[in-house]
Amino acid sequence: MKTDGSIMTDIFDAKQSLLITNVIAEGKPVDIFVDEAGTIAGIGEKVRAQYKGDAEFMIDGDGAIALPGLANTHTHSAMSLLRGYADDMVLQDWLAQKIWPLEAHLTGDDVYWGTRLACLEMIRTGTTAFNDMYFFMEDAARATDEAGIRAALSYGFIDLFSEEKRENECRATERLGTHIRAMKNPRIKMAVGPHAIYTVSPEGLRWCAEYAAEQKVGIHIHLSETEKEVNDCLALHHKRPAAFIDDCGILTPHTIAAHCCWLNDAECALVGKRGVSVSHNPASNMKLATHRAMPYRELANAGANVCIGTDGCASNNNLDLFEEIKTAALLQKFFWNDPTVLAAPDALAMATIAGARALGFGTGTLAVGAPADIILVATRTACNTPLHNATSNLVYSCNGGAVETTICDGKVLMLNHEIPGEDEILTGAARAAGALVKRALAA
Amino acid sequence: MKTDGSIMTDIFDAKQSLLITNVIAEGKPVDIFVDEAGTIAGIGEKVRAQYKGDAEFMIDGDGAIALPGLANTHTHSAMSLLRGYADDMVLQDWLAQKIWPLEAHLTGDDVYWGTRLACLEMIRTGTTAFNDMYFFMEDAARATDEAGIRAALSYGFIDLFSEEKRENECRATERLGTHIRAMKNPRIKMAVGPHAIYTVSPEGLRWCAEYAAEQKVGIHIHLSETEKEVNDCLALHHKRPAAFIDDCGILTPHTIAAHCCWLNDAECALVGKRGVSVSHNPASNMKLATHRAMPYRELANAGANVCIGTDGCASNNNLDLFEEIKTAALLQKFFWNDPTVLAAPDALAMATIAGARALGFGTGTLAVGAPADIILVATRTACNTPLHNATSNLVYSCNGGAVETTICDGKVLMLNHEIPGEDEILTGAARAAGALVKRALAA
Repeated sequence: MKTDGSIMTDIFDAKQSLLITNVIAEGKPVDIFVDEAGTIAGIGEKVRAQYKGDAEFMIDGDGAIALPGLANTHTHSAMSLLRGYADDMVLQDWLAQKIWPLEAHLTGDDVYWGTRLACLEMIRTGTTAFNDMYFFMEDAARATDEAGIRAALSYGFIDLFSEEKRENECRATERLGTHIRAMKNPRIKMAVGPHAIYTVSPEGLRWCAEYAAEQKVGIHIHLSETEKEVNDCLALHHKRPAAFIDDCGILTPHTIAAHCCWLNDAECALVGKRGVSVSHNPASNMKLATHRAMPYRELANAGANVCIGTDGCASNNNLDLFEEIKTAALLQKFFWNDPTVLAAPDALAMATIAGARALGFGTGTLAVGAPADIILVATRTACNTPLHNATSNLVYSCNGGAVETTICDGKVLMLNHEIPGEDEILTGAARAAGALVKRALAA
Repeated sequence: MKTDGSIMTDIFDAKQSLLITNVIAEGKPVDIFVDEAGTIAGIGEKVRAQYKGDAEFMIDGDGAIALPGLANTHTHSAMSLLRGYADDMVLQDWLAQKIWPLEAHLTGDDVYWGTRLACLEMIRTGTTAFNDMYFFMEDAARATDEAGIRAALSYGFIDLFSEEKRENECRATERLGTHIRAMKNPRIKMAVGPHAIYTVSPEGLRWCAEYAAEQKVGIHIHLSETEKEVNDCLALHHKRPAAFIDDCGILTPHTIAAHCCWLNDAECALVGKRGVSVSHNPASNMKLATHRAMPYRELANAGANVCIGTDGCASNNNLDLFEEIKTAALLQKFFWNDPTVLAAPDALAMATIAGARALGFGTGTLAVGAPADIILVATRTACNTPLHNATSNLVYSCNGGAVETTICDGKVLMLNHEIPGEDEILTGAARAAGALVKRALAA
């Protein structure tokens, strides 16, 4: 992408009106005008002539593909600090011997730096909105605010079936709600985060459902990730997990259920009927050997909103949604033994329109009136040569490295691969990660 | 990476002595000295002091991870021209309706441009040697020669059980052998390429085995990719594919067998006993829904040399071996239902030492006396932050975009992401791909 050198110094400084020329959207060459409120005010062939005088800044897309910023609908951002700390282990050993001992020493500062690092990686790879569940979420909110992208942030509600702990988790959830409302940042919302049926009591699940309804916020939960979860639920509650959480009021049109590997047909129908968003997490499922792939076709046919997420960096180990949609398309074909399952347009839609619908920021489309969450994917690259089919290349050939420019809410966050302040974030996150391991090993 | 600006103009021009400072190799900070013959003459802590005056050029690695150049042990390079042309189809429809009609119009010029594009992508993502099977291989040889990397090139021998065609394929194979010997380029060798048991007669397979033995060159074959191949072989020959091709003399220590998804335990033992290299192609297998993963553990335990390949761009759709080793590690865990299978060091070894052993150029290690096929992977990036474990990051977090410098046979082919002549190659390949489709549609 070519850009007038003189504007480079301050295009990052504030939200300004932008004219993006010479890009391809849905197969057509267009220009895009973003007004100073951060809204797409014009998109099409004649936009350049119409808005030329109005734009504070101009970006020459040089034939790049323009897409809505991607949405990562299931992650634990600050786990970026644990990237590569432990891999290739059985789930229970991995958690008990490696992850939990480290997490026991986490501080709010760690979560700040981990979330900054995660946001940096998301900006670099084209993600402008994410659905997060972790601890010290006030610090995650501060990091997201500074990074300039969007998030639904949930505190990981884990009562371990104890009434005392439940009270604590309810108060922590309420505090996060109060904190985020006080931020008055339209890019940041809260969600309620009941972790999973094996870590939260039925009473806890019911409280979460009621609080979410009362506050008009979303719900973020892990559902049916492993076969063990299903078998334990059947033994304890005589129903399968989806039916069980539905009884607790958890399945709503504002719920994002992550994983969902082991849903059977009846559960797919139920999840679809309730209008739930299902976040597919193929890399994590493969790495941790869930041994069954989310039933994409059944869920889509049942009307569920199937979107995609990377899960945390400890089980992936990156946040690149372009890699994730490829992995999703490959896994669905391989596991369900049908190369026609999850074709490229559907895989891309999981990260764009479906992800945006799940998060509810009104993004996910390049249309007049939509928020200007826009990414530009370079076409003068090997991964987009030849360009027989842009959607195929985006899903199967490109990774997040092909993203050259990222704009969120009208603000330019990355221009031609440059992100201001990147070095400081990498240094701060590396330092926090090193100190965390040191504390854990010394304990 | 920082480099003295004054040397940028000619570091690409010719093989010169190089001092690479400030890199990490096998966890230790080292410098590397490459002599003007393209051989690693020194590697270690004291190399800088020892060789400073001798180096024509210096490269400051700025903390990058140094690895041997990767080896892609199964691809059809020129199929890069078909990238994204057809996806998400049943194998037989995909071949009969899309791939073969296009390939019928291929010219030597197309293969030249497709191979140039493929080499460009490989250089960018850290691959310095590949094992190729396609048509017009004299043109592939010219492209590889110009690109500066290494290849074992085989003509795709397909006699379709016809004696007349077999004669033609034998002569084409011999012509390629004569051509490549005459090139006298130590980076380029030929291999014999019997396509598969369902496209080559037993007589053809035997001729290939004999010609390879006589010429002391390798063999490159597709083996046991689909269940249908196994069932058809059992019906026709009353043995499984590995035993059948062993009878024809195809299984040797100089054979690379691609795919091998459906090998049973006895076949794994046989392949191991013969010292065969097995090229795992996980992305292609998933995309085309082979429905079974290559039995990594059985093959490794049996002594087979398990390496990795991307397959062609029509069934992947890129040539990024970093993505491929991640996909391999994920698929093995998922399919075999064990998160400890194919741990990160073994996954990386498939692309380095095992791949190099399969191709026989003496590369795959950073040691004094080895050819200087070296790549530098940036560590001041999100994918390598934090750096708890470099091998884990290389396998699970980085993709080929993290490679910043690629050196093959002592010649710098990419420096700090810059590849001379990239635009011309992208333009030439795009033009060839467009013209190919036009010819095919007009026919």
